Order: sequence, then structure tokens, then C-alpha cells
Amino acid sequence: MGEITHVIEKFKKYLGNISAYQEALMLIHWDMRTKIPQKGVEQRSEVAGLLGEKIHKLETSDEMKYYIDAVKESSTDPLLLKIAEVCEENYERNRKIPTEEYRLFIMAQTKSEAVWQEAREKADFRLFQPDLEKLMDFNRKFATYWGYEDNIYDALLHNFEPGVTTKMLDEVFPRLRKSLLNLLTKITNSSNQPNPALLQNHFPKKDQEAFTKKILEQMGYDFQAGRLDETIHPFAIALNKNDVRITTRYDEQDFRMAVFGTIHEGGHGLYEQNIDDRLMRTPLATGTSMGIHESQSLFWENFIARSQSFWETNYDLFLQYAPKAFQQVDRDQFYHAINEVKPSFIRIEADELTYSLHIMIRYELEKLLINNDIQVKDLPALWNEKMKDYLGIVPPSDKEGVLQDIHWAGGDFGYFPSYALGYMYAAQIYQTMNQQLDIESIVKSADFTKIKQWLGTSIHQYGKVKNPLEIIHDVTKEPLNPDHLICYLQEKYATIYQF
Amino acid sequence: MGEITHVIEKFKKYLGNISAYQEALMLIHWDMRTKIPQKGVEQRSEVAGLLGEKIHKLETSDEMKYYIDAVKESSTDPLLLKIAEVCEENYERNRKIPTEEYRLFIMAQTKSEAVWQEAREKADFRLFQPDLEKLMDFNRKFATYWGYEDNIYDALLHNFEPGVTTKMLDEVFPRLRKSLLNLLTKITNSSNQPNPALLQNHFPKKDQEAFTKKILEQMGYDFQAGRLDETIHPFAIALNKNDVRITTRYDEQDFRMAVFGTIHEGGHGLYEQNIDDRLMRTPLATGTSMGIHESQSLFWENFIARSQSFWETNYDLFLQYAPKAFQQVDRDQFYHAINEVKPSFIRIEADELTYSLHIMIRYELEKLLINNDIQVKDLPALWNEKMKDYLGIVPPSDKEGVLQDIHWAGGDFGYFPSYALGYMYAAQIYQTMNQQLDIESIVKSADFTKIKQWLGTSIHQYGKVKNPLEIIHDVTKEPLNPDHLICYLQEKYATIYQF
Repeated sequence: MGEITHVIEKFKKYLGNISAYQEALMLIHWDMRTKIPQKGVEQRSEVAGLLGEKIHKLETSDEMKYYIDAVKESSTDPLLLKIAEVCEENYERNRKIPTEEYRLFIMAQTKSEAVWQEAREKADFRLFQPDLEKLMDFNRKFATYWGYEDNIYDALLHNFEPGVTTKMLDEVFPRLRKSLLNLLTKITNSSNQPNPALLQNHFPKKDQEAFTKKILEQMGYDFQAGRLDETIHPFAIALNKNDVRITTRYDEQDFRMAVFGTIHEGGHGLYEQNIDDRLMRTPLATGTSMGIHESQSLFWENFIARSQSFWETNYDLFLQYAPKAFQQVDRDQFYHAINEVKPSFIRIEADELTYSLHIMIRYELEKLLINNDIQVKDLPALWNEKMKDYLGIVPPSDKEGVLQDIHWAGGDFGYFPSYALGYMYAAQIYQTMNQQLDIESIVKSADFTKIKQWLGTSIHQYGKVKNPLEIIHDVTKEPLNPDHLICYLQEKYATIYQF
Repeated sequence: MGEITHVIEKFKKYLGNISAYQEALMLIHWDMRTKIPQKGVEQRSEVAGLLGEKIHKLETSDEMKYYIDAVKESSTDPLLLKIAEVCEENYERNRKIPTEEYRLFIMAQTKSEAVWQEAREKADFRLFQPDLEKLMDFNRKFATYWGYEDNIYDALLHNFEPGVTTKMLDEVFPRLRKSLLNLLTKITNSSNQPNPALLQNHFPKKDQEAFTKKILEQMGYDFQAGRLDETIHPFAIALNKNDVRITTRYDEQDFRMAVFGTIHEGGHGLYEQNIDDRLMRTPLATGTSMGIHESQSLFWENFIARSQSFWETNYDLFLQYAPKAFQQVDRDQFYHAINEVKPSFIRIEADELTYSLHIMIRYELEKLLINNDIQVKDLPALWNEKMKDYLGIVPPSDKEGVLQDIHWAGGDFGYFPSYALGYMYAAQIYQTMNQQLDIESIVKSADFTKIKQWLGTSIHQYGKVKNPLEIIHDVTKEPLNPDHLICYLQEKYATIYQF
């Protein structure tokens, strides 16, 4: 008994070291995206590389394996066993990839991002094609090393959404797609179209920032454990639960970018800030998956901040910060305008309804690629074809088409589905919450404490203790189910577009 | 031959690792002083501790010793030999302190800073006395471990100003003191007193910042390799030569704080930005000592930015940013006011003349303490006595007296002399530069390129390749010599105060 206690102490210290290196690395990443002077980037990248290597070594060392085995053999503490399980999975998956191959992959990835940037600027997919082929090959090999039961794509999905399979996606996506297209037709045919031009007034950055901070405070985002900065590509990053930083981007001609963007990142931030203290300095001290994370950001951005009740309460506050022209915009016009649905080329600018269609296009192409059912060179044509089928529009060039996202250039395949899963999860969570809380009256009170606490108790506190589908099942007593999203959208848009 | 090349490659990689950890640690320090949210401090301190430990281990490892010996035995490359020399000194000094004792020192240090803060707030030295006694004991023991030839204080001086000895300071300080006191009397008795109240006009922060940035650009501070932030205690920090950050503090009632403070930190920044590329990722890639660093900041702050020629050129620029009230202040009044000499209690607020007197008080007390010639408990009375002797004033309480500086609370003894050395070095450097360049006409041209280049070639590029006295000797062909500072001050104040 004494000996295992000693081993566990050492294991905890070992994990503490890993999380310290990770925290240092996270700070470097945050700094590189927000504050670093241009000339500092080169050497800082080296430092990041060295820290990453160090972490990788610690996660795949014999010492790590020794601790994992010791805990599995001798401990009955469920938390410790879960930690060992997560460490073991990490250990196994990393050890399966030969070091040299991984090194080549990292190099290919770094090069590819630069090539992609150039290709995108020139709107010329052929420039990027050879790199993308290489990255696809690496992914195919890695997926084979990791193994899978059914579809090779499952091995990639596992990196972002453990437990979710190609089979599950092939069941839910077509259902969702059908309903979305059906809704889209009704919306397009509606005579009650919004006027988003009403929203485009010069809105000084500092006023947008002041308003958004008020909303973040309403949500319960803790500024003593976080901060808000400005970046071109907004993000949230948790150095640890007591230092969770978010960033946003201001468009002085269109406040929607910053206001909804900040609330979105604030949702990610709230998740990380409310993880159980007991998980600190362990690999469980972060959100359980990309999809559950996205469910939290989308919950706040759409289900709360694009709702009628939210603006019933907050429109007066908004008007205190907004330019005078908004005094002429009545609340209903405003509410309708911020909920405009309109097929567009760029995923990150898509509305709540069409967003998932963008995802399905990417998912289908990724799946075909990894299964060798299509070739990388066919992507641009297939992309445009699917855009036509799903959204009824064809991008003018690859820049607004297949080259728009950085994910593939970063070697990330299997990531995109998480975004659509986030929408479905959020709708499921919302539906359950609404049975237990009177969301509408809470939102109208502008005191979100009860919602924040509910999310904290049901989801945030667990970190990686539960996997994404466990979270969804424990909260909603259901498996993944797209119907709640469909119902929510149906109801929302039927009112707005009057069909 | 092949084998030593291989060992050297490994040594370089090893040093690169150390400098990567140091860079990560520096970023943590910068962030903790500028951006971190309050609740993040606790865990970030742990991370900093772990990284510090890691660096310490690498610097004192058997592997390090192996590389040092290999280079010393087999290499003839002077740069590599210098690197090995610096590593060896570090290795030896660190190994001489028993790990457990060092750990206790770090703990005592951390605790002491908190105690000091409370003692200072309450203006009660007795609260701090026991901690200070402990830290003094540690320093006395460490100094004994490190060894010294003449005076135990030399062992401490060596940490901050290698090569400078107690004997040297005991020669120069009394000479300097006598001249300063003599000058101070003349200044105090002068009937031509400045009117610093003229300078106290509400000057919005953003305008101060804009003006200061213009001056930093004139100096050649590279914003692509640095940035300017706001902190309570201004500092400069080099993550590497391509990312050298400075901070400043704004007082909207008194622009001098930010303007001269930023130029001062900019001088530190220029030093680090202009170290030779070949030294990167080695322990030589930083300023050679605290004193030489201070000579660079003081050179710009005082010798340049408090000179008449500087304001001849820049006063119009200043007026473009300054509040309207300054239109009524003529340039001579302005120049006189920014060069006011007046004995005051607080070192960091002291003028160019009295500053060194503050330093001598601290130096004398430190030297007596470490030699056991006085007791810690006697400090407040002795402090006040010396203030009376040197500056003619007695602080109203220990808060404005012996408790004002953080250095002792941080366990740093032997640090203070560097500040006064910085003044003397700067004057020596200025004098030599003035023989080779027409400083006055360069300053009047507002294009400081030639000065920046001269400092780069003579001082900055060398990093730690030369020790401080080598730098001074190579540049000025003289040893440490206080006369240049004395002459400079004599000449400057005779003009201003008309004696």
C-alpha cells in the first residue's frame, strides 16, 4: 500500500510537469497570435517545437507506461483510473506512429500552411494539391496505425470526437440535411425577408468592446480568470482554468462580427473556467471534445444571444453603446436582421441554418478522400458541385471554395464534423435544460447565473472525465439526435419568416 | 576531429534547449507583469518554478560538465571557449550551493517579498527584520561558498558586475560623493531655480504614448522586434534579440514619468536588440552586466533626452502632442525644469545628480551588513543618519526610507552599485563617443543612426563576450573613472543653475 501511494505521488508530479510544459506552450501560442512582434516569430516557433517535443516524449516514455500500469493494477480510485485511461490512450496512439514519420508529418504540415496561404491568395488549387496529397497520405497511414473497426475515417474522427463514428454521421447528416434544405426553401420563398442593411452603421470599436464586455459579465465569464484581446482569427485558449483567454475581431461597419463572435468565444471560455478544481494539473482538465466545446459556444451565441428574449432585455443596453442610427431600428426589425438566413460561400460567415450544410460538404469529401474513393485533384470540381446541390450557389473561385479553410492545410482531417455535432449537441442540451429551467424568463432577467450553474453542473465540471457521448447521454438521456436541432430551427424560422 | 565536432553539435543543441526554456520562462515573467488575470497567478508561479528548476538542472548537470571539459580540451574557437567559460562559471557557482539550502533560500525569498510589502505598507521595519536577517544569512553563506579574495562583499558584487570589487568602489564612491555634495551645495544656493510646476499639466495617456513612440523610433528601437506595454513597475525584457519588450507607466499629471521612463527602457531594449546574431541560443546572448545595461538606458535617458540639443530639435514635436498649456512654456524654462535637482527620499524618483548618493547609502549599509559590522536591526537608524549626511533630509517613516526598495526583500545584495556604475560608465562612454562623433549635431538632426551604430559596434554586439570592465576599457581606453561623470554634471548644472 505504501509503495503504490508513493508511485501515485510520483505519477501526479509527472503529470504536473507535463501540464506545466503545456501551459508554457499555450502561453507561447496565445502570445504568437496576439502580441508577438513580427521578428520574434521565427525563434519562438523553435521554442514551441522544443516544448512540443518535450511533452510528446514525456507522454510516450517508459516511465509514463510504468505509472499507467501501476495505477491500473493497484488503484481503485475512479478518477485516477480515468486519468490512467486517458494517458494510456494517448501513449498508445502516439507510440503507434514511428518517430521519423511523425517528424516528416510535422514538417509537411508547416510547409503546407504556407503553400495553402499562397494558393488561397492566388485562388489556385493546383499550387496546393501536392501538399494536400502528402498530408492525406500521412493521415491515411496514421489512421491505419491507429486502427478502426468499420471505416478508416473513424480513426480520424476519434482524434476530435471520440465515440462518434462514420456510421452515426451517415445516419444523422442526411436527415439533418433534408430538413435544412426543406427549411431553406421555405425561408427563401418567404415574402417576409429581413433587412440586414439596417445593422450596418459605423460602430466604434471601443463601444462594441464595452457592450460585449457587459454581455460577457452577464454570462458569468470571469475576467479575474481571463481576458479579452483582439486578433484577426478569434479564438479561446485555456492556459489553465484560472486563466482562460478569449479574443475577438472588430468590424466597425458590422457589429455582428465582434458581438456574436465574443459571445461565442465566451461560451468556450465559460466551459474551461468551470472545470472541477480536482482535475487541475491532469490531462482531464480541459473540454472533453471539439464538439462539446462547440456546443457550449453555440449555445450562448445562438440559443441565447440570437433569441428574442435576449434582445427584449438587452436591446436598451445595446442602444446605449450603439451609434445613433440604431434608434431608428425597432427591436423586431433588429431581431429579424440578426437572424437572416442566406446561402453564402464562406463557412465562418454562414448563418445558423446553412452552417451545417457547409460542414456536410467537407465531411463527405474527407470521407471519400481517406477511403481513396476520390482523388485530391478532383476536390475543386466536387466542392463546387456539392455547393450547388446543398446551397444552390457556386463559388466564383477556389478562394471562396475549396481553399477557404486552414484545417486541411494543417493536416487536420476528421475535425469538421465537430462543428455540426456542436449544433446538434447544443440543441439537445437546450431542450433538456428547458425542461428543468424556465430559460425564457431567466434570459429576460439578464441574470444568467442559473444557466451558467446548470451547464457547470451538467457539463463543464467534468472536463475529460466523461467522453462526449456520455455527456450527451447523461444530460439528455438520449443518444446523438438531430431532431432537436431541426425542431428548434423550424420553430424559430417559422416565426421569423412567417411560414 | 570528427568526434569533437559531434560533441560540439550536441553541446550547441543542449544550449539551445536551455535557451528555449529560458525564453518560455521570460515570456511567463513578461505575461505575469503585464497581462495575466489575477486568478492565473498561482498556477503560473508553479509553472515558472518548474521551468526554473529545469534550467538549473541543465546548467549544473554532469552532461554540461562533460561539454565544458570537451570544449576546453579540444576547441580553439574563441567564441566556443568563451561560451564554455561562462557555462563553467555558472556550473561551478551553482554547484557550490547545496540543493537543499538553495531550495530554502528560494522559499525564504518568496515569503520575504510578501512580508516586505506588508511592512512597507505599515511603515514598520520590525515586521520585515526577521526575514531580512535570514536572507542576509543566506547571502553570507553563499558568498562563503563562492569564495572571494579580499572582501566577502566581492562575492556578491560578482553576481551583478563581474570584475568590479569592493576596493574599486571604495576608491570611486568617496570621490564621486565629494563632488556631488559640492555640486549640490552650489545648486541649492543658486538663485536660478527652475519651476517644475510648469510641467504639471493634464497630458492624456494616448498622447504621451504617441510622442514617446516617435522618440523610440528616432532612437532606432525596432518595433518589429519589440513592443511597448503599460505596467506599474516599468521594465525591459529580452525574450531573444528579436523580441525585446519594454513597458512604461503613465502619469497624466506628469509626463516625465512616461517620457523619460520609456526612453530609459528603450535604451535597455536597444542593447538587447543589437546583440550579434551569432550569439543567439547561447548564454552570451544578453547584456554583459547590470551596470553596462544601466549605462545604456541612462545614456539615452539623460545624456541624450535631457540634453539641450535634444529639445532644440524635439520641442516642436513635443508641443504637437502636449496639452495646450505647454505653448506658454518656453524651451529654456522647459529644459531647466526637466533638469531640476532636488534631494528627495525615493531613489527611483531621484534626479541625475542625487541618484548616486542614494546608491552609496545602500552600498555602504550592504557592505557593513555582510561583513557583520552592523546588525539588521540597526538599519533604519543608520539609513536615516546617512540620508541626513548625504542628502540633508530624513524620511518621515521607514516606508520612504529603508523599506522603499524591493531588492533586499528579493534576497539581492550587491545589486545596487550597478546603478551608480551605470552612471559612471555612461559618462565615460559619452566622453569617448564625443571624441569620435559630433554628438550635438547628430542629436540636433534627430537622426540617431550614427549613435545607435556606434553603440552597437562598441558595446551591444558583444553581449556577454566581454565582461563589463573589458567593455569599458576597450571603448574608453581607461579603467572605471568617476571623473567623466563629475565633469559632465559640473558642466551641465553650471550652465543651468548659473554658478
